[in-house]
Amino acid sequence: MIFALDAMGGDFAPHAAVQGTLDALEKTSKSLNIILLGDETAIRTELGDRDSDAIQILHTDEVVTMEDKGSKVLKSKPNSSLVRGIQLVKEGKADGFISAGHTGAIMSATLLTLGRIPGVRRPALAAYFPTEGRGKVLCDVGANPDAKPEHLAQFAIMASHYYDHVEGFADPKIGLINIGSEPGKGSNLYVETYKLLAEIPNFVGNIESRHLLTSEADVLICDGFVGNTLLKFAESWISFFTDEIKGKIDEKLSYKIGAGLLKPIFEDLKNRFDYEEHGGTPLLGVNGISIVCHGSSGPRSIMNSIFLAQKCINNNLIEDTKKSLAIHFGK
Amino acid sequence: MIFALDAMGGDFAPHAAVQGTLDALEKTSKSLNIILLGDETAIRTELGDRDSDAIQILHTDEVVTMEDKGSKVLKSKPNSSLVRGIQLVKEGKADGFISAGHTGAIMSATLLTLGRIPGVRRPALAAYFPTEGRGKVLCDVGANPDAKPEHLAQFAIMASHYYDHVEGFADPKIGLINIGSEPGKGSNLYVETYKLLAEIPNFVGNIESRHLLTSEADVLICDGFVGNTLLKFAESWISFFTDEIKGKIDEKLSYKIGAGLLKPIFEDLKNRFDYEEHGGTPLLGVNGISIVCHGSSGPRSIMNSIFLAQKCINNNLIEDTKKSLAIHFGK
Repeated sequence: MIFALDAMGGDFAPHAAVQGTLDALEKTSKSLNIILLGDETAIRTELGDRDSDAIQILHTDEVVTMEDKGSKVLKSKPNSSLVRGIQLVKEGKADGFISAGHTGAIMSATLLTLGRIPGVRRPALAAYFPTEGRGKVLCDVGANPDAKPEHLAQFAIMASHYYDHVEGFADPKIGLINIGSEPGKGSNLYVETYKLLAEIPNFVGNIESRHLLTSEADVLICDGFVGNTLLKFAESWISFFTDEIKGKIDEKLSYKIGAGLLKPIFEDLKNRFDYEEHGGTPLLGVNGISIVCHGSSGPRSIMNSIFLAQKCINNNLIEDTKKSLAIHFGK
Repeated sequence: MIFALDAMGGDFAPHAAVQGTLDALEKTSKSLNIILLGDETAIRTELGDRDSDAIQILHTDEVVTMEDKGSKVLKSKPNSSLVRGIQLVKEGKADGFISAGHTGAIMSATLLTLGRIPGVRRPALAAYFPTEGRGKVLCDVGANPDAKPEHLAQFAIMASHYYDHVEGFADPKIGLINIGSEPGKGSNLYVETYKLLAEIPNFVGNIESRHLLTSEADVLICDGFVGNTLLKFAESWISFFTDEIKGKIDEKLSYKIGAGLLKPIFEDLKNRFDYEEHGGTPLLGVNGISIVCHGSSGPRSIMNSIFLAQKCINNNLIEDTKKSLAIHFGK
């Protein structure tokens, strides 16, 4: 298997991509090759004497920055690591693309280059919440700030396949994020989406966000504005909580001792909700594997994203999503 | 000052209302009278020998339940404690109404009975987050799942007055909840709302939810679907966090000791994010004081809601909101 990795994307480029690649190669027993795209000198400097036969470097001289308009990069930065990486997938030279760069640019360039799975109206992004047991998937977390009921119904199928094929938990139950549990609750978008989801066998109804982490639903569906807002809020809570505790530690010796004793629990929680630990998320609904990583991804997150891309291929995510959409939406 | 209190609303009726009234009367030095509305026998039983000259009981024989359609209660339950209580405000027999009952019913009956402040398009609900320093107000948290840009712009003014007049912090800065910090980010609703808010001097721009608790903005504006989802998610996090710790306490003696030592910090956090502590929230934009309390409000929350109603009156919330809306929206 061979993956194209954007070495210039994210806050810790190219270190995170290079180190993540080396770690992935060391840990996997499967046949794995990585094409690192980006400034060859910078990548070689980072690699030092740790070069490997499994690594190729493809020099690109443009870099997509956060100031670029995501929807324009295909034309404005044709020789960027981001655009060239996705093209390698299209050309069949890579099995998937991975980047911690500009999310909007990855989504747009992927969609325009690889196209959609037949029948898919809108690609979507899913995020995994590592709760007790199977964990939860929230979808969409930002690809579609303005969505329609038919989009959300498709997200339910796409995200269920992600949950089953990539996270590895069979028969996921689907819930609709809403502001009340009864049918008929919510904005027009959610009232109409409920009706469409009610026709899917695994749908368990509306889920209020207070039960997001604990309800029977495994896959939680919402529009990209709500999902992105929830995801970012969740990320901030762990820090808020630990910062509150840190802020008080100096008040009393007993607090300092208590915090020291509970440190393993806090660290476990922080790790579980750390994107580092989990890696990126595949852009769902596009006709190929394109993994979007958090901008602040470090080496571990990149390594895990490579493993995630492997799972997508090994478990036939795209073909199975295609079949299931055809069954549910008749195309 | 005299307030009408729905003794039948909420999970702990009539105990919470009766006990909350007694506690408020004991703690306040100001002239305060409470009309308790509901089943007279139940209220008298709860009161026992603790009756006071400052308490009147107004018997009502209908009760609004969660099964009632909020928008219909004015007609379907005309002799309910909820409907009669709001009517007392309209008739000038009470200075404000307080209820922990069916939120949709309180909003609808209040709107239809008291009407809106001239110029207000939609009433809204605000919630206070007790962060370090001045705290944050999030608005709307559920009154308007489907909102328009003009509504959100008015919420900014209404919530700023609430922050200033009721929470007591002058010159609040306004932020717009969004999925990115740059102008032009978000769904159409948020792109258009940004343009309207940009004309208000205290507007500081888009705020991503990860910075909701820590940004420079005091008053955070969003539609009722997003706000309700964020509020309920926030409520669940404290429990999620403490439950995670509780679940591990038995694994090691050191965890048990550590949790014991940190207990005061956990309890402080829990209290700070407990609606009990803070009381309800006035329905903003209606032409009178109507305080919506959380359904699971206990006595302390009811007592604090009574004090909150006092502040609304003492600090001239309604008249000042009216003036400010006229300045900003020319009516």
